[in-house]
Amino acid sequence: MMVAPRRVCLTITTRGNYGKLKSVTEALVRSPYLEPFVVVGGGALLERYGGVIELVRANYAAPVSWELPYLVEGETPLAMAKSAALAAVEFSTMLHQAQPDVVLVLADRYECLPMAMAATYLNIPVAHIEGGEVTGSVDESIRHAITKLAHFHFPATEDAARRIVALGEEKACIEVVGSTSLDVIAKLDLEDLRPVVEAQGSGGMGPVVSLEGPYLVVIQHAVTTEFDEARRQAEATLGAIRDIQLPTIWIVGNMDAGNNAIFGAVQHFLHSEHPNYLHLFSALPIERYAPLLKNAACLVGNSSSGIRESLFLGTPTVNIGNRQAGRERGANVLDVAHDRAAIVAAIRQQLAHGPYPADFRFGDGKAAERIAKRLESVAFRLQKRITF
Amino acid sequence: MMVAPRRVCLTITTRGNYGKLKSVTEALVRSPYLEPFVVVGGGALLERYGGVIELVRANYAAPVSWELPYLVEGETPLAMAKSAALAAVEFSTMLHQAQPDVVLVLADRYECLPMAMAATYLNIPVAHIEGGEVTGSVDESIRHAITKLAHFHFPATEDAARRIVALGEEKACIEVVGSTSLDVIAKLDLEDLRPVVEAQGSGGMGPVVSLEGPYLVVIQHAVTTEFDEARRQAEATLGAIRDIQLPTIWIVGNMDAGNNAIFGAVQHFLHSEHPNYLHLFSALPIERYAPLLKNAACLVGNSSSGIRESLFLGTPTVNIGNRQAGRERGANVLDVAHDRAAIVAAIRQQLAHGPYPADFRFGDGKAAERIAKRLESVAFRLQKRITF
Amino acid sequence: MMVAPRRVCLTITTRGNYGKLKSVTEALVRSPYLEPFVVVGGGALLERYGGVIELVRANYAAPVSWELPYLVEGETPLAMAKSAALAAVEFSTMLHQAQPDVVLVLADRYECLPMAMAATYLNIPVAHIEGGEVTGSVDESIRHAITKLAHFHFPATEDAARRIVALGEEKACIEVVGSTSLDVIAKLDLEDLRPVVEAQGSGGMGPVVSLEGPYLVVIQHAVTTEFDEARRQAEATLGAIRDIQLPTIWIVGNMDAGNNAIFGAVQHFLHSEHPNYLHLFSALPIERYAPLLKNAACLVGNSSSGIRESLFLGTPTVNIGNRQAGRERGANVLDVAHDRAAIVAAIRQQLAHGPYPADFRFGDGKAAERIAKRLESVAFRLQKRITF
Amino acid sequence: MMVAPRRVCLTITTRGNYGKLKSVTEALVRSPYLEPFVVVGGGALLERYGGVIELVRANYAAPVSWELPYLVEGETPLAMAKSAALAAVEFSTMLHQAQPDVVLVLADRYECLPMAMAATYLNIPVAHIEGGEVTGSVDESIRHAITKLAHFHFPATEDAARRIVALGEEKACIEVVGSTSLDVIAKLDLEDLRPVVEAQGSGGMGPVVSLEGPYLVVIQHAVTTEFDEARRQAEATLGAIRDIQLPTIWIVGNMDAGNNAIFGAVQHFLHSEHPNYLHLFSALPIERYAPLLKNAACLVGNSSSGIRESLFLGTPTVNIGNRQAGRERGANVLDVAHDRAAIVAAIRQQLAHGPYPADFRFGDGKAAERIAKRLESVAFRLQKRITF
Repeated sequence: MMVAPRRVCLTITTRGNYGKLKSVTEALVRSPYLEPFVVVGGGALLERYGGVIELVRANYAAPVSWELPYLVEGETPLAMAKSAALAAVEFSTMLHQAQPDVVLVLADRYECLPMAMAATYLNIPVAHIEGGEVTGSVDESIRHAITKLAHFHFPATEDAARRIVALGEEKACIEVVGSTSLDVIAKLDLEDLRPVVEAQGSGGMGPVVSLEGPYLVVIQHAVTTEFDEARRQAEATLGAIRDIQLPTIWIVGNMDAGNNAIFGAVQHFLHSEHPNYLHLFSALPIERYAPLLKNAACLVGNSSSGIRESLFLGTPTVNIGNRQAGRERGANVLDVAHDRAAIVAAIRQQLAHGPYPADFRFGDGKAAERIAKRLESVAFRLQKRITF
Repeated sequence: MMVAPRRVCLTITTRGNYGKLKSVTEALVRSPYLEPFVVVGGGALLERYGGVIELVRANYAAPVSWELPYLVEGETPLAMAKSAALAAVEFSTMLHQAQPDVVLVLADRYECLPMAMAATYLNIPVAHIEGGEVTGSVDESIRHAITKLAHFHFPATEDAARRIVALGEEKACIEVVGSTSLDVIAKLDLEDLRPVVEAQGSGGMGPVVSLEGPYLVVIQHAVTTEFDEARRQAEATLGAIRDIQLPTIWIVGNMDAGNNAIFGAVQHFLHSEHPNYLHLFSALPIERYAPLLKNAACLVGNSSSGIRESLFLGTPTVNIGNRQAGRERGANVLDVAHDRAAIVAAIRQQLAHGPYPADFRFGDGKAAERIAKRLESVAFRLQKRITF
Repeated sequence: MMVAPRRVCLTITTRGNYGKLKSVTEALVRSPYLEPFVVVGGGALLERYGGVIELVRANYAAPVSWELPYLVEGETPLAMAKSAALAAVEFSTMLHQAQPDVVLVLADRYECLPMAMAATYLNIPVAHIEGGEVTGSVDESIRHAITKLAHFHFPATEDAARRIVALGEEKACIEVVGSTSLDVIAKLDLEDLRPVVEAQGSGGMGPVVSLEGPYLVVIQHAVTTEFDEARRQAEATLGAIRDIQLPTIWIVGNMDAGNNAIFGAVQHFLHSEHPNYLHLFSALPIERYAPLLKNAACLVGNSSSGIRESLFLGTPTVNIGNRQAGRERGANVLDVAHDRAAIVAAIRQQLAHGPYPADFRFGDGKAAERIAKRLESVAFRLQKRITF
Repeated sequence: MMVAPRRVCLTITTRGNYGKLKSVTEALVRSPYLEPFVVVGGGALLERYGGVIELVRANYAAPVSWELPYLVEGETPLAMAKSAALAAVEFSTMLHQAQPDVVLVLADRYECLPMAMAATYLNIPVAHIEGGEVTGSVDESIRHAITKLAHFHFPATEDAARRIVALGEEKACIEVVGSTSLDVIAKLDLEDLRPVVEAQGSGGMGPVVSLEGPYLVVIQHAVTTEFDEARRQAEATLGAIRDIQLPTIWIVGNMDAGNNAIFGAVQHFLHSEHPNYLHLFSALPIERYAPLLKNAACLVGNSSSGIRESLFLGTPTVNIGNRQAGRERGANVLDVAHDRAAIVAAIRQQLAHGPYPADFRFGDGKAAERIAKRLESVAFRLQKRITF
């Protein structure tokens, strides 16, 4: 007897999702038992967050079936709350119309909670990727709330899986798969910096900087519950960059509240100081970002890639502030406060140390295969029950 | 130095909320350090769910400051998902405009999760009442997800508090207070059945039934993830009522998906069988309900009041199906499946047993005072951190 | 060269739409150049407004492609405003996803304006059916506002077309087609009352009344800007019905604000007076309604069918109040105020007069064919320009 | 007997609204019979559209009572449709909560239609400012649709009033008041260019250009129904500016779909050509804009200020394309197509001509006084009736 393949809904709402779901989409497409479709929403539709939808259209193994705009402009807490609400409106329409057999929800962004809520209320199983981790900011609350809604869990690490169990989820509904974003990196030619060199010429702001000698990469996101301090924090990092004066690629963060403040600070620095060592990108696809990170002398900021991808690649990281607080990390990370002098000292220490050995604790490049395999046959239990 | 009183937002969206927040509102009003305001939304605005807003206006210690309609009609999963989404839209507007110092979120209804989400994203502290319990249905997921968002917890029992701790919440953010709905009951004259006798004459459907001898009370809610079985389940209970033939007050449940099916089954029974022993109410305020329950020979169905209020009052309960599964209960409860014969047998056993001794495990009538006292001075930590 | 057929979006949101779009759907399906798809939304999804979606599924020539719940419960002005807003959200998602070549918007309901607005903003042409008429209530404003948004007009009468021209629309974008609801009636066996007799036995409320001798039909809608008077107006009509004491079929109106008040008044009358001459339906499909109307001694109330279908069928009408004020009418209509004595006198006058000759001023049963023919090839001009 | 002052809701959603409602707010505040409150929404909340809310807070005679974010990001037709829908959600909440006696709706922006719709459904009178005009683009449809919803009309000119009458509105509900944006200009020192010179130093993009000799001002908006041509049209104008090489202030337009394309074209021109004669502002308050316009050798583009404010000030205008098509205009306007050579020729003709005499056809600076006077006592008729 023929059985229709299971329809799997993948939702891409940020630049980060792009890299995290690319290998998953490919693995799902390869399976005869699965049929993925891609929904692009929110910031991933927008030019100013990197035009992710165009990248998906160009590079993904499955077509974009739905576009869901829900991002209410303003970068304020109110705009974020409205965006989340509108996301719930839009996702529920899509889920009802498309009737997937399972929807993949990723990590901890503010729109992921209404997405999981909509699926739950519509009796559509939720499989949660990258649950069970610990970070700072409001993501911490969102991620664990999604865990309590999700029907299956694909954590990246054993430690995250342990935490999901501790949260009262059944072991039978958890499989450690590694980080899906490392799947993509594992397949790339990481020595090829030409694309990112060329990208400097045709995009971004500020002068083209050399990537032939040692260089820095900076990614700094606003921390949502510390909204007002975002600019001050950006200035501390900018001050450190100025002190170091190595060629620096600064990649402006995601669309969280507060990132406008950071963007403004960097722009002002560019216009007032005219530094010849600083180039600003508003986004880089993983294919360009991974070689850039691999060959960087140091990653500076508070991006999760400083914890995860850097460990996989052996890149030294200076992690600033509490955004990644509580998150499991490797030997390649130095933690510092939002303090110019401290940042400078840590960067110098990492420059002196040089690259670290690669560590596969966060994934071995096969996460997507494991997810696809499991989704082929797992029986979801819609009625959840806490284990204690 | 004068300090402005803390503004506390109370949100009433169901009949059940009415009874659960009445004593809380009174206690908040009595405190010079607190200033409550009441928001009425969703089903609590509607005649057909009991006209709760009129009851609030007539009987509450604080005025209704906001009315928020968000209930999308249809009693389907899609309508529920849309209602939750619209609730998120509306609550975020209200919370931003009113800027309370804390918002009280109650238990586990589908609109409580978007409410907690909106507050979280707006950096407004959430205090969760009646978290940590275990039930069946989708409420189970919702309640624990809210726990992971909430900044303070007022569980009803020690067992619930234990579960909240196990979910990784800090002990310093938890206070066991008892069930607030028992506060109201503790102050009522529970022997006065006249108001409910009179209510039969002027409202509801079906004949007036006598409450002078033994009588039954039935409350049966649809279980949201078993949408299609609601009517069949109602018919099992109706069959049992028909076998017993005692005077019976049936109270139609809340606005969950599926309750239309139950309502239809009862209406059809009334119109086709013309039973002289069955009266149907679509709602009863706690002031009428509590004496009715106190003096009932048995409460039948799957209402949480069969677990909680019945234990406090010593009323025998026949609890049907899995809606209250996993919930802590006292000696007064007999659990049965949705099976006519089993329901009949259990009712007969309870009729033979008669009243149970009162048990204060779920509250002693002072929950509201404890909540008010704590809210006067508690320092909320917006940045949550899981404890493991 | 093959040209893809034009995709035409039909939207059914009320019982009335069902009858008005049935012939249109059939005519569109017959055309090789057109491909209709049906969207069902709002009240048409709901059991308590007659389960229109089931009727569409059973009887329409095209499948239901989308279900759009947007009806915010409450029957208040605020709920209506919220419903309209949510309709705009939902229609824009649907229109963007489905990308029709034209969307048909009907008449003057509150959700038709956001529908036309969404299409306009999405650059999808709007063809408006039944514009240009004059009525009372807020429909008056809505209808003409839609005319100013629409790209093509299919008015029912020459008089309506004249008014659309006067509103500054170009003559080339207007075609008089007649009323589409008469298309369906023109094809029915109008002498067969058995289905509606049977329907009394299995549905509705109150006793079965005889349709063998003279009988009345009542349809009374709440007038939205006179919200508070709805119940009083219903009581005037109920009083008249009581004075006449002929067998009467009362059909409860649509989901406008205030209809709950009317429904309540009729229910109360049924329960307190136990009239043996009054049967209440919450809805009747056109296939049952048309024979009922054809053979009625008199139609009483404020339904547009008293103006339009009654003239086509020659049925005497007593039109109450200002809901149809300003609307073109034939000799079969007597207008009275919401006054019991006046209603009684007018009904008696119509009973004495008997049936009127049929009049095809509002349509000849070929409206749908004309609409389909025109949609096959019309070139829409998205950029409108007022003619004066 | 004391009568409470009438509460008037003013809604500011764009930079243009700021100037148009400033004098109105002042006039309303001066009246003892009126009490205005200000609602700021959509683009007016956003930094990148000029931070209008800060200007309102600093310069308006009444406080900002509500902030309503509803702008869904994307600058696509779908985002516009969603924004309009969300505007309807938000405005209805605000209007219900604030219960104004009248709401002022301005002109023809896409969010004005849902605003008027929400008020209409909530039975709150709508007074429409600047109705009855003729322009190109979708604004044309929106404006007249609002006219058909509005309960009172304050057109700027006799010609507009004539058109409102022709649309079937009652003369008793129309008063010609002139353009309110001219009220503000009439009170300014129009010779003081220092603030705008300083603004070049601290904001905008590109070099500071001299305003001491002849200079151009460019404002070019995307035309929403010609979405894809926006960039090409911007390039025609940029080419003309390059040919003329006079100092030029380019002010980027409003948040209509397509303006991103224009902004992109200007930015690209700045970065690739490094013109020393072009300065780009994203917004200028009316206090700076009016002197700039008054002293400009020529205004170029498709802004309505080229028609209206320019005539009042006697500034030569080159009006490009069809955005202002059909709009009444004075002798100071030369109309050209989006063609580089034609634009150059028209600018040269205007430079040769020099300033025109001031013309008060569009207003005499007393519009706000007339509006306030009328609102003090006008009796609104909620039930509209077309006059033909």
